[in-house]
Amino acid sequence: MSDSTEQPEYPPELSEEQGLFLTSQILDWQINHGSLLKRVQTQTDHSVLSHPIGVTVFPTLFPRAQFHRALELQSIYNELYCAVAQDEQWIFEAIQDLLPIDPLAAVLWNVHQQVQKAGYSQPVSAGIFRSDYMLHADRPSDLLRNPEVSLKQVEFNTFSCAGGSHADKVVKMHRYLARTGAYEDSVQLSALPQNDNIEQLADCLAAAHTAYGGKSDTAVLFIVQPNNFNIADERPIEYALWNREQPVPAYRLDFGDVLECTSLAGTGELLFHPPWLSKTVEISVVYMRAGYEAHEYDETGIAARVRLEASLAIKCPSLLAHICTFKKIQHALTGAGVLERFISEEKAAFIRSTFVKMYSLNESDARRLATDPILSKDYILKPSLEGGGHNVFGDAIPDFLASIPESSWGAYILMERIPSPLVMNVLLSSLGIDSGEVISELGIFGTCLWKQGEMLQNSVAGWSFKTKHEDVDEMNVVKGYGCFDTPLLI
Amino acid sequence: MSDSTEQPEYPPELSEEQGLFLTSQILDWQINHGSLLKRVQTQTDHSVLSHPIGVTVFPTLFPRAQFHRALELQSIYNELYCAVAQDEQWIFEAIQDLLPIDPLAAVLWNVHQQVQKAGYSQPVSAGIFRSDYMLHADRPSDLLRNPEVSLKQVEFNTFSCAGGSHADKVVKMHRYLARTGAYEDSVQLSALPQNDNIEQLADCLAAAHTAYGGKSDTAVLFIVQPNNFNIADERPIEYALWNREQPVPAYRLDFGDVLECTSLAGTGELLFHPPWLSKTVEISVVYMRAGYEAHEYDETGIAARVRLEASLAIKCPSLLAHICTFKKIQHALTGAGVLERFISEEKAAFIRSTFVKMYSLNESDARRLATDPILSKDYILKPSLEGGGHNVFGDAIPDFLASIPESSWGAYILMERIPSPLVMNVLLSSLGIDSGEVISELGIFGTCLWKQGEMLQNSVAGWSFKTKHEDVDEMNVVKGYGCFDTPLLI
Repeated sequence: MSDSTEQPEYPPELSEEQGLFLTSQILDWQINHGSLLKRVQTQTDHSVLSHPIGVTVFPTLFPRAQFHRALELQSIYNELYCAVAQDEQWIFEAIQDLLPIDPLAAVLWNVHQQVQKAGYSQPVSAGIFRSDYMLHADRPSDLLRNPEVSLKQVEFNTFSCAGGSHADKVVKMHRYLARTGAYEDSVQLSALPQNDNIEQLADCLAAAHTAYGGKSDTAVLFIVQPNNFNIADERPIEYALWNREQPVPAYRLDFGDVLECTSLAGTGELLFHPPWLSKTVEISVVYMRAGYEAHEYDETGIAARVRLEASLAIKCPSLLAHICTFKKIQHALTGAGVLERFISEEKAAFIRSTFVKMYSLNESDARRLATDPILSKDYILKPSLEGGGHNVFGDAIPDFLASIPESSWGAYILMERIPSPLVMNVLLSSLGIDSGEVISELGIFGTCLWKQGEMLQNSVAGWSFKTKHEDVDEMNVVKGYGCFDTPLLI
Repeated sequence: MSDSTEQPEYPPELSEEQGLFLTSQILDWQINHGSLLKRVQTQTDHSVLSHPIGVTVFPTLFPRAQFHRALELQSIYNELYCAVAQDEQWIFEAIQDLLPIDPLAAVLWNVHQQVQKAGYSQPVSAGIFRSDYMLHADRPSDLLRNPEVSLKQVEFNTFSCAGGSHADKVVKMHRYLARTGAYEDSVQLSALPQNDNIEQLADCLAAAHTAYGGKSDTAVLFIVQPNNFNIADERPIEYALWNREQPVPAYRLDFGDVLECTSLAGTGELLFHPPWLSKTVEISVVYMRAGYEAHEYDETGIAARVRLEASLAIKCPSLLAHICTFKKIQHALTGAGVLERFISEEKAAFIRSTFVKMYSLNESDARRLATDPILSKDYILKPSLEGGGHNVFGDAIPDFLASIPESSWGAYILMERIPSPLVMNVLLSSLGIDSGEVISELGIFGTCLWKQGEMLQNSVAGWSFKTKHEDVDEMNVVKGYGCFDTPLLI
């Protein structure tokens, strides 16, 4: 009469043969479908090595209701951030404390002011956003036996959102394993949602290309970081653009080469002069996959960003939408009545239900929580930068704050940790294979096109699902701290 | 008034930027599309490295007429080899000299006799063949200025024909480069033929599966070599079977595990007991991608092959068709009037036009050519084994023959070298990037299904095109001596 007789364990215990079979199916599938990371340090002029990106061996349990709730939320989040991105004054107030202490915020605001002076020439913006959530369990419990949990937002990314292509492929991999019987009875194909990020993200860029005029001699320009090990996340979107029934030309350009390889026409068009082709190409859409780190903005970087922003090309996203990726914006939106400034009351309530408590370290309450070794356990200290990798967790916060000048505390946001339900899985990556308790993060991709406050297009594109061991703080798959995954909906 | 003003050089001279652009487009495309080789020596239980397979930077010039001629020849070659494969007595006579000296021939004939005694239970056979050709130029000349050449057969492969998936992908890569303008005006997309080997080879196995009965609880079994670095050539066919509208289940099994993981039902069905699944699967089709090297036939290997051949499963190919891959068969078919034993006079004449002179070393003429350091220059000495890697070229032949006992000379065939026209290209592989004179080999894939002499299906599936530097003797892309390529039809 124990629980286990009613509910089989998940994932099932594997024999040695079963484990070897699954990992060999997975690694071969990854090699054959570009689910890989380039080892850039091995790159020569003629070859380069790759290794499979981290993936879960099984899909991870996730409540179906919360999955659909996250999808439903996305078009409201898109609407919210498009509205915020039009409100220069509100943005300035939300981030002004950052400007003296955060070099990236300062440089972006400075670029904004420079372009503003001459006037932005392109009223249309495109957005590829990603809202990240975790499951919140009121009390520690096994998800399989007590799926009563809620959805809490970790962060909202407006700039250079990665992982779309990898997520797309890993879902197809888990679905392949399920439909070929590799999981036997433990995974039903119908419980694995489909995902078409690659096509959907390309659709967004193609729609922006059309909004620009859609001429076949104009092109989308991906602004990228040099020597990128993660080309398997960027390139598929480029291929999808070229592969459309009406092909959309797409090129790549290192952010550092923008000044040298582009020019502005007298009438504002962004002209691309690829040094490897004998022609000049007018750029319809600038898709930013670089320019999110302060070190990219030396004098050349600043001038490059000014040129891109000043041009007639549609930016994905606009500069103000980029700034909305700062945690200070996420924090400011949690203020009383703030959401209602941008969206309807009903929508605001829905969005607000995903918020956890966030504090600025200007508040004395927050300082008390953050400097207390006991109280700080329930919090994460986040810098206002995009993406992970810079967060400070729990009882490490007091020592960290003590190590930096108090004048720079204002760059950080203190955020409640999200207590997760218990789920198990087996994680496979270049670092090893391990089973145990895991924590997942669901990211929903939203794409949109807007013109000075008016939404021209608003779509839920797809999603990413990432899982790490419960005892690892950071979720960063490309650096090895986690795996791409698929929710097994229950 | 020089030639060069009328005919631009091909391939065009590249600037450094153009070279870097093309190789970066190529390597990224390969990583994203599984145009890779596994580095098996890096394999662990959780990861493995891969590197891009060798490819040409440009497609290589090839006469359109000869390309279509090769395609036309294939259904006749299919018919010929299916007929030969039914003629046990003729095969025996062609290879009997081999039996005392060639261990692989001996073991295969022995397996045939064992199975013959009990009687073959499956009258239907499937074939995935590949006929390889080179261009023959009567006098040394530049192909671009003098495309008057003919097509000569290098060899005919009936067993475990590789390269189909790689060829499919590399063609798609060159077509991608052409349609995205990476070659500018030097390559027209319309001059690059399409290729769908992966779907076509899967179609052949699916047709055999249907001929067996087509039940969804039966499956195709790929018999493979362990730790294969070339899974990117095998796996796509497996995926294509699972991905069909009516999925055809496909599994892999190491040749060395056949005895342990299969059994014969009392009524002859081949039953597969995958140790990683809790079920038994009846096998409809055995697709051999292993068992072509003598060392695979220890006692277990022989018993495994006997079990497979004795079973009711349709073999791709049958054992006698396997034996037809020996060079002795190719040689025997060049004998006066021999083709007419199997196919019509008209077809025989067409086939014969692709033959070069071949000699057995039993003939005194051949011995004189092979042992003379001057005369031997125009010849290649080939063992009766499948595939490349064991050939002896030109003036190395006399010394080689002197180094082995004369009693084993009978295992070799002496074949006229095919003088090729001059063509240029740039080759890219893990070994380096180099431009210069190249020689290409066109392989045409033919698939068929036959029942005791009656052709049930006869198709031209697709092709592979491989190119190596003119001064390299061996064509073996997976070992680095050459590149996958696409013909640029002129």
